[in-house]
Amino acid sequence: MKLDHIDTPAALIDIARMQKNIARMQGRMNALGVAFRPHVKTTKCIDVVRAQIAAGARGITVSTLKEAEAFFAAGVDDILYAVSIVPAKLPRALALRRQGCDLKLVVDNPTAAAAVAAFGDQHGETFEVWIEVDTDGHRSGITPEQDTLLEVGRILHDNGVTVGGVMTHAGSSYELHTPQALAALAEQERAGCVRAAQRLRDAGIPCPAVSVGSTPTALAVGQLEGVTEVRAGVYVFFDLVMHNVGVCALEDIALSVLATVIGHQADKGWAILDAGWMAMSRDRGTSRQSHDFGYGQPCLLNGTPLAGYVVSGANQEHGILSLTWATGDEGGHADDIAQRFPIGMKLRILPNHACATGAQFPEYHAVSPEGNSVEWRRFQGW
Amino acid sequence: MKLDHIDTPAALIDIARMQKNIARMQGRMNALGVAFRPHVKTTKCIDVVRAQIAAGARGITVSTLKEAEAFFAAGVDDILYAVSIVPAKLPRALALRRQGCDLKLVVDNPTAAAAVAAFGDQHGETFEVWIEVDTDGHRSGITPEQDTLLEVGRILHDNGVTVGGVMTHAGSSYELHTPQALAALAEQERAGCVRAAQRLRDAGIPCPAVSVGSTPTALAVGQLEGVTEVRAGVYVFFDLVMHNVGVCALEDIALSVLATVIGHQADKGWAILDAGWMAMSRDRGTSRQSHDFGYGQPCLLNGTPLAGYVVSGANQEHGILSLTWATGDEGGHADDIAQRFPIGMKLRILPNHACATGAQFPEYHAVSPEGNSVEWRRFQGW
Repeated sequence: MKLDHIDTPAALIDIARMQKNIARMQGRMNALGVAFRPHVKTTKCIDVVRAQIAAGARGITVSTLKEAEAFFAAGVDDILYAVSIVPAKLPRALALRRQGCDLKLVVDNPTAAAAVAAFGDQHGETFEVWIEVDTDGHRSGITPEQDTLLEVGRILHDNGVTVGGVMTHAGSSYELHTPQALAALAEQERAGCVRAAQRLRDAGIPCPAVSVGSTPTALAVGQLEGVTEVRAGVYVFFDLVMHNVGVCALEDIALSVLATVIGHQADKGWAILDAGWMAMSRDRGTSRQSHDFGYGQPCLLNGTPLAGYVVSGANQEHGILSLTWATGDEGGHADDIAQRFPIGMKLRILPNHACATGAQFPEYHAVSPEGNSVEWRRFQGW
Repeated sequence: MKLDHIDTPAALIDIARMQKNIARMQGRMNALGVAFRPHVKTTKCIDVVRAQIAAGARGITVSTLKEAEAFFAAGVDDILYAVSIVPAKLPRALALRRQGCDLKLVVDNPTAAAAVAAFGDQHGETFEVWIEVDTDGHRSGITPEQDTLLEVGRILHDNGVTVGGVMTHAGSSYELHTPQALAALAEQERAGCVRAAQRLRDAGIPCPAVSVGSTPTALAVGQLEGVTEVRAGVYVFFDLVMHNVGVCALEDIALSVLATVIGHQADKGWAILDAGWMAMSRDRGTSRQSHDFGYGQPCLLNGTPLAGYVVSGANQEHGILSLTWATGDEGGHADDIAQRFPIGMKLRILPNHACATGAQFPEYHAVSPEGNSVEWRRFQGW
């Protein structure tokens, strides 16, 4: 299908940009001598994941058991479920392993570790668990020097659970914006995770995998001594937050929302779009960054960004396109808004956060360099 | 199914609260002597809409053609599609009308009006169109005194399109928080829409329907002279934004997200939940209001709010529960966080914005007063 025939709003993937992003990350990981395990929470789409695996990815990372179930059903069997396991979810994890899925769980506390051990013992299943390490204080995990690290390792190891490794995610990298700061955090992430692995090994607990990563640190890191694999998700599409972090150009962003002009408020300098927050998502991640892109960066159908314009406001199914911040008191005012953006005109809007925007759609339209599109399904829920 | 057996995160509807909210709004509309046409964009769920119709609603309002198609397939035939029509979407509108759906379109500009007229003429279909009126400057529509109003009316009327009425939505009511301000805006919404209808009628253009509404104005309005119907959506669930606006108590909020405690960062006073922004949505609508609820208000399983606690941060599948703003520099610190919220404990989180949070889920779990739940499907996309 040609772009012109797709009903709006729609989520478009620029296949050429996506393949370039995949090749860039995989190439870096190959050069650094580590395996790459993409985080598929960004896309929840088997077509995208097949492209990542074809490029050299080894296994995947998931954020929900539904992702694990869906991707295992689609033929991926090496899966890291990177959220500390809720004991009540162990039956679903067991079911996956019994079907042959090499599912690895994550814990960051003694209670969950003991629950996995007890459940495994009860059902005669040797679970594999990776211990989550906190290397930047932004979320969950055990810091490398905490006693709890060895306590959790022992609970697992002494009770018949395979300790598969340690993993960390320096998510605070999203708050940075210089190569120096990113490289420093990447080294902190690496060193902290390697140290945690070493402490476990010194205590007699095997720890084969040392897994680190976030898109910014993966693209900034100088060396990965002691690391066995890297995880990253949003790099496959990139987005405006990543652009502000400094790890991609606007022209690298592979996800956009196709929208149509449906009206104007000419006296305010507004064109009204049929893509509101239901399409763009409520993510305003660039609002705390150096350049606030509102609800997204408008581009022409061919992908050229419309410099100075922004989606400055959004209702559920209405977006407001204006010169930057024309909705506020300070912004500019486009006198020619109705002439420049006539009713029925289609635009592509680059999103703040590809993971959040993609989640608003049941499918992507993957667009080839020739302008033809095919539908790639994605799924929702837990 | 009992609450304890539902996998987390899950979207819960408290049926008793929902029925109370429906009865409250319908009772008001009955007393004011107007028809009520609920906006189903909030729920996209036929089970909820059946309850609204059973209580007396006449017809529905939709924000997408997918909603129109889904609810028509489920037996609802009086449907107002309340977003200015994109000419390219007219074939889908025609298909619905040809199947017997009494679908009413909306326009707010001459170009779209002429496109509907031309398309109707070409296909021998008499479309019904309502004209969108702007009564508060917050989004789209034609202001009551603009010449464009009569121009659009004439394009439709003179070219064989039925002008079914005028409609307006005072969405800026979400920014208010006193009964006086809400009542004043409600009167402005009413008077502006009635005035627009009068101008059309004075010009010889029939205008039977005069449709106004938003949840806050519908609950604040004193009289509705000249109005034939009211529309509102979020009232069916309410949410924390509506609580701050002042039109509901916390105990009226019928939608919550069931979550499980998966970890702690005790030194920071954090409990980590398995409900992050993918479950709560990225909507931070209360951040600009008198009380900022973060990503949501935690409650016990029985619905009792945990005063002072908040979901202060969110990653995609991780929420951070803390004493109010403990993630910032100012907030409190709960020394007993791990004891008070042990691993595996389930909580219910009230959302900022029910329309946005509901959209993150493929289904609701509707919970009866006895604590039993049934699954109610909702749909996604356009």
